[in-house]
Amino acid sequence: MTDEPHRTAVIDVGSNSFRLVVFSANGWWKRVDEIHEAVRIGAGLDASGELQPEAMERALRTLDLYAHFCRATGLQDVRPVATSAIRDAANREAFLARARTQTGLEVRVLSVEEEARYGYLAAVNSTTLSDGVVLDLGGGSMQLVRVVDRRADELRSWPLGAVRMTEHFLAEEEASRKQLKALRAHVAAELEDADWLGGRMAGIGGTVRNLAAAAQHAAGLPSLGVQGFVLTREALDALVEELAERPSSERAKVPGIKPARADLILAGAAVIQAVMEAGAIEGIEVTEAGLREGVFFESLLGDPHLFEDVRAESVRNLSAQFHFEPEHVAHVAELALQMWDALAAAGLHDGDPAERELLWAAAMLHDVGAAVDYDDHHKHSQYLILNGGLPGFEPRETALIALIARYHRKGDPTWGDLEALAGPGDQERLARGAALLRLAEQLERSRDQIVRGTRLHAENGAVRLELVGDGDVRLAQWAADRERGLFEQAFERQLEIVA
Amino acid sequence: MTDEPHRTAVIDVGSNSFRLVVFSANGWWKRVDEIHEAVRIGAGLDASGELQPEAMERALRTLDLYAHFCRATGLQDVRPVATSAIRDAANREAFLARARTQTGLEVRVLSVEEEARYGYLAAVNSTTLSDGVVLDLGGGSMQLVRVVDRRADELRSWPLGAVRMTEHFLAEEEASRKQLKALRAHVAAELEDADWLGGRMAGIGGTVRNLAAAAQHAAGLPSLGVQGFVLTREALDALVEELAERPSSERAKVPGIKPARADLILAGAAVIQAVMEAGAIEGIEVTEAGLREGVFFESLLGDPHLFEDVRAESVRNLSAQFHFEPEHVAHVAELALQMWDALAAAGLHDGDPAERELLWAAAMLHDVGAAVDYDDHHKHSQYLILNGGLPGFEPRETALIALIARYHRKGDPTWGDLEALAGPGDQERLARGAALLRLAEQLERSRDQIVRGTRLHAENGAVRLELVGDGDVRLAQWAADRERGLFEQAFERQLEIVA
Repeated sequence: MTDEPHRTAVIDVGSNSFRLVVFSANGWWKRVDEIHEAVRIGAGLDASGELQPEAMERALRTLDLYAHFCRATGLQDVRPVATSAIRDAANREAFLARARTQTGLEVRVLSVEEEARYGYLAAVNSTTLSDGVVLDLGGGSMQLVRVVDRRADELRSWPLGAVRMTEHFLAEEEASRKQLKALRAHVAAELEDADWLGGRMAGIGGTVRNLAAAAQHAAGLPSLGVQGFVLTREALDALVEELAERPSSERAKVPGIKPARADLILAGAAVIQAVMEAGAIEGIEVTEAGLREGVFFESLLGDPHLFEDVRAESVRNLSAQFHFEPEHVAHVAELALQMWDALAAAGLHDGDPAERELLWAAAMLHDVGAAVDYDDHHKHSQYLILNGGLPGFEPRETALIALIARYHRKGDPTWGDLEALAGPGDQERLARGAALLRLAEQLERSRDQIVRGTRLHAENGAVRLELVGDGDVRLAQWAADRERGLFEQAFERQLEIVA
Repeated sequence: MTDEPHRTAVIDVGSNSFRLVVFSANGWWKRVDEIHEAVRIGAGLDASGELQPEAMERALRTLDLYAHFCRATGLQDVRPVATSAIRDAANREAFLARARTQTGLEVRVLSVEEEARYGYLAAVNSTTLSDGVVLDLGGGSMQLVRVVDRRADELRSWPLGAVRMTEHFLAEEEASRKQLKALRAHVAAELEDADWLGGRMAGIGGTVRNLAAAAQHAAGLPSLGVQGFVLTREALDALVEELAERPSSERAKVPGIKPARADLILAGAAVIQAVMEAGAIEGIEVTEAGLREGVFFESLLGDPHLFEDVRAESVRNLSAQFHFEPEHVAHVAELALQMWDALAAAGLHDGDPAERELLWAAAMLHDVGAAVDYDDHHKHSQYLILNGGLPGFEPRETALIALIARYHRKGDPTWGDLEALAGPGDQERLARGAALLRLAEQLERSRDQIVRGTRLHAENGAVRLELVGDGDVRLAQWAADRERGLFEQAFERQLEIVA
């Protein structure tokens, strides 16, 4: 917090819309501002091969607004990148020259491979995908990137975008089964030589995000954004059924579908179906990141532009935006995990490493809510975790982290409004996590790491927790003793805390 | 944000509980941490006149914990203050010496007048009280401070605290009407010479807060904390009726009453009734600030330790904690207010200055939610305003500010969950505020203050808004034009925006 954050503007000069996104970084990073315009610079391009005069005017007006914005807000690191519409236009140089002269912006036209690479960077830095495929479905084209050991092994693009497929196969108000079948057969034929297609798949782009939102809606899940949500083949098939039954103008009535996408969503969904079919893929892990984040990650991270551990980075990043006492939270996490490990060793739970990671994350984030207000800061921590987001975790996991943090003080752990996200055993995971975090917080009450660690003995149906310290640990003992109730409920054992 | 915040710990060594509170200040200020212990150092004091050995041990153990905490977290500005129990104890010097030797803390014993003055500072810096009375009801004593032109004109204390009155008048499980009458008569007699009692009253202390929470509950209001809530005589009378009907152990069942206060709440409520009766006072404006905030304000602010304008300071303070673009928000506020003024001049609303102030506050705070996440930042702004709080405003006003900020983008303004707080005309106030803030935001879209101002003409049942700028304002015109819908609904006039 001692220096001003570095701010980077990425301007995505896309075929359908232009978007300026500002990222800020200062030991943490986040998206802090955004302007969006539906410029449709690609309008009329397919027919003539050229950017049309009116579209070009709209584009220059928008770039001018963005240039004003950058100057006014003191943005110096500005990265405008253009994709297919401008790449493919015969008169692109004329447009780029006018952009340069009129707005001062130097727009960089991405090659097909560069565009695919930014999508890959976005996906691999916001999911845990290490081997599999990144799918990026846009309006004009679809990119598939084969990922091996987190590296991009093959970067390909096909002219299978949602706008193009709509125009070719589903241009009418009603869609027939035959048309959908033809569309899918076309996609399948195009993908024939991509014999590496298969395994885990991460998906980016507006079509994927919107389908995921609709699938969440259909499943009755709370809407916490689609980051990390898995769109299954089954859910997608059901959505295609539901969309295909309606005329194009009525498709926005399917809950979760955005009106602005309603005319393209069915073709996009069918393309994805065909890709999943071709690769025998069960589900797509959705990420909200995309091209713009890819460009930003390239600027933020040294080659190969990858976070070492996406989940740990998400936790660290959210924590760094709000929190001030790294030693305290790290020690609380250490104490909580030490007890969790000892309880697993004693056979009091099954020691699932996934559960351990969620407890760690919750411990690191338990106090972030104090940035809102000290009163009820445990509830504010829940809000900030759910709304700030943790790329790399699925919604269920993010919810569990948020709830463990919520119950680090006050109240009996329950899923409440988030119930629909809970899987089998998750109530017990929450109860264990909250119980241990609450104890660890009490052991670290004086904030001086006086309790270095604990030794745990399970015997005669009870648990004895011995505090190992660098001095008088009686205060910690007494504080923890008053908060042993949750532990006794969660583990169904009496707890004795000794110095 | 360039330097580390200055942190101040106030340790309130009270008769019932000890509380360590940490405040942080860095162009903004807030409470960031708190530890609380129910030490009951006053136990047995009344009978013997001395602090009892066991109570003293509990107190020293707690102070030791607090001292550890301060050292571990690097707190250097530590201000321990003691009130009535220690002030009145015959063996106080022995206790203070042991505290000094064992914990290193130098506890300052406040005089009756100093204690009252800190309560006064807390109240006058967290409400808009400028002339009237501050009431501070504790366990042992009650302070009343006469306020004239925001200065403390008279500082008085009476032995009428809730613990003491419970012991003297309501020690039994059941309370009779006769006992309550005797209690009130006693209070009335004690207050006889305070002939200045009357006018506006601000109330501090746990009893007042808890009664306010119960009154909010009874009125079906959403619980956003009690800051700024007005506890009316009528609501208080109803609560006393309800509490008096139950035996002492059942009083916590009255919704909103905290179990820890259940045994003292009736006596406290009756004392306040008697004070209101004596001064013909209609309502008490509740504040969550108290002694500890008073001590902190003394350290934060130069003599006379008063914020110049409490409401403006609250807005500025919340904004400074989260926001980065002061020029932008200030200009959006200016543009919104200019349109609001012109519409009032044209007779399109009645120009209530209270409404104007709320619009100003919302404009200053509309973007704070971007600190949580850019997506849905308007909703996060609502959350931060409601939960961060704005001392000096009542809950209804804070809600209106939060909602105007919420609707600065997306959606149709509605009170939603906060409906119960809305008064007559508030839906229209919200609609006007949101419409103007949304327009102003678009006029400032390029963030370069290019639209310096506007001229508004209402004629022939339509409104023409002329943009006055330092250059080409067509972008702003075009952006605002797309967001004129809310305006046309709110003012029932067509809007034309011209450059």
